[in-house]
Amino acid sequence: MLLAAACSAPADKTGAGGAAGDSATVTTDPLPSWNDGANKKAIVDFVTDVTKPGSANFIEPADRIATFDNDGTLWSEQPVYFQFFYALDQIKAMAPKHPEWKKKQPFKSVLDNNMGELMKQGEKGLLQIMATTHTGMTSEEFASTIRQWSDTARHPTKQKLYKELVFQPMIELVKYLQANQFKTFIVSGGGIDFMRAWAESVYGIPKDQIVGSSIKAKYDYNNGNPVIRKIPELDFIDDKEGKPVGIEKYIGRKPVIACGNSDGDLQMLQWSASNKLRNLQLYVHHTDSVREWAYDRKSHIGTFDKGLDEALAKKWLIADMQNDWKVVYPFEK
Amino acid sequence: MLLAAACSAPADKTGAGGAAGDSATVTTDPLPSWNDGANKKAIVDFVTDVTKPGSANFIEPADRIATFDNDGTLWSEQPVYFQFFYALDQIKAMAPKHPEWKKKQPFKSVLDNNMGELMKQGEKGLLQIMATTHTGMTSEEFASTIRQWSDTARHPTKQKLYKELVFQPMIELVKYLQANQFKTFIVSGGGIDFMRAWAESVYGIPKDQIVGSSIKAKYDYNNGNPVIRKIPELDFIDDKEGKPVGIEKYIGRKPVIACGNSDGDLQMLQWSASNKLRNLQLYVHHTDSVREWAYDRKSHIGTFDKGLDEALAKKWLIADMQNDWKVVYPFEK
Repeated sequence: MLLAAACSAPADKTGAGGAAGDSATVTTDPLPSWNDGANKKAIVDFVTDVTKPGSANFIEPADRIATFDNDGTLWSEQPVYFQFFYALDQIKAMAPKHPEWKKKQPFKSVLDNNMGELMKQGEKGLLQIMATTHTGMTSEEFASTIRQWSDTARHPTKQKLYKELVFQPMIELVKYLQANQFKTFIVSGGGIDFMRAWAESVYGIPKDQIVGSSIKAKYDYNNGNPVIRKIPELDFIDDKEGKPVGIEKYIGRKPVIACGNSDGDLQMLQWSASNKLRNLQLYVHHTDSVREWAYDRKSHIGTFDKGLDEALAKKWLIADMQNDWKVVYPFEK
Repeated sequence: MLLAAACSAPADKTGAGGAAGDSATVTTDPLPSWNDGANKKAIVDFVTDVTKPGSANFIEPADRIATFDNDGTLWSEQPVYFQFFYALDQIKAMAPKHPEWKKKQPFKSVLDNNMGELMKQGEKGLLQIMATTHTGMTSEEFASTIRQWSDTARHPTKQKLYKELVFQPMIELVKYLQANQFKTFIVSGGGIDFMRAWAESVYGIPKDQIVGSSIKAKYDYNNGNPVIRKIPELDFIDDKEGKPVGIEKYIGRKPVIACGNSDGDLQMLQWSASNKLRNLQLYVHHTDSVREWAYDRKSHIGTFDKGLDEALAKKWLIADMQNDWKVVYPFEK
């Protein structure tokens, strides 16, 4: 009844009376992969409250901005960010044209699958790998290489395509918000061009609503066949303090909903919590070592420590992956 | 008949048969302020062609990206960019708190209304005026000051509010495209925050679809009342070669429609002309010295020289303000 009433999609209220036949109440559950409980109820209550005309907390559609972190919030991020796996895969794909890499670090350790040796190359080595795989090409070449990778590359331990390792309950949340005239954005520390190449079709979030870290680019008229070339110079880091800045830069409005999973998202959640309109903050807590991974305060990837303290203190929603989510990935359904 | 058929808004095709009563053909004209002629026909033919299911040139809604320059394309820009008038007005508004400005350049010349003297201060003086009026405050303070200005400030010779000096035919074009599922963006050399403060309500283009030049900003937690502060450091110049770069950065897709009025828009039009999908380029030519201004190749503001040559050579649309537009500004209606 609660859920049927909460589903504000037009011409779809037949379940509200409870007597409209074929299990209307079930089909109108906007978040079927979330277990019933305080978090699901809080989300649905919030959306119902701020979208109901006449509500004291009504939010105009133009102000219905919802921002989602990507790594760890919309898809998995262990044992390392998937964009880094992309970089390693690309080094291997590019190696035949660079025979010298067999003897040259940091490339040698990638080709040898020697992660210990790679880590010894330090930040300089990692930056070299990122620059080699993320710059020097046109924007179209870069996007097409990523699309090909995302259509074929598999996670080393899960053995699934990376794009299958997305969180079904969060995709439902994105779609539920969209159905209620929220404009949904990704605001991630990941590369903006990396995400745009595959995320639009996977999450249903348009490219221009994807915000991320970026390197600089240059327009080249190229004798009448214009291209944009990616150059090895940092443009913007969309993480921590950079997230509210990125939101202001790309969206120009303070969100009323912000979802993250790590300390890198804390400033984004603080920023949305300072909205004068009613607002909601949600942290995804990785508590499921069986279906996904379990990590928080001491993890080197997706550290969730200060954010966890602040979420507890401010009573932000903390989605407990193990208990709140019926399924984690779409393929479990 | 052409126009009635072209209007693809659903449930609004009653005029097509020509016998549906109360002047349906007139009400379905999507561009009523454009005179009938080659340009209007070309626009309507293009939109009809690319939005008709089954058309060889059909464009998926996700790819229907249209970009508009602002200064000189959506509103006037003479005798100087209106954002510069804002800066001068702000210097005057701030002057009571800066008594020393009465004797200090470049401020003195602004307070004396001495434009000749102000120009003598050169680029350094102009930059000082822009920095003083555009940095050092929070993003919210900046937006609220601009809104107040745009609600009250009048153009020195036209005696109208600046936001009344917008081009009715171009607003109709924006709305016509939106009604046909185009996503419309502003891509302007003007300041992104300056535009976002007033342009959303005037043009019906959401803040996050407004791209412009920017200065850097910083997040400040501010003891739990977070703010974003604008700092005096250039971030991005969205002009000339910067326009395709800005499009790639903010939109992530090549436009199928690009509209401008000056050489500063040429690279944006070239970029959209290189789209593999059917595409359209439109230049607004300022030919109306009576209703607006007449200027092109030799103007210091909105120089239209190389762009005019290329538009003529490539048969891009050139809207002749004097002949193509029934009215220029909304208040003429």
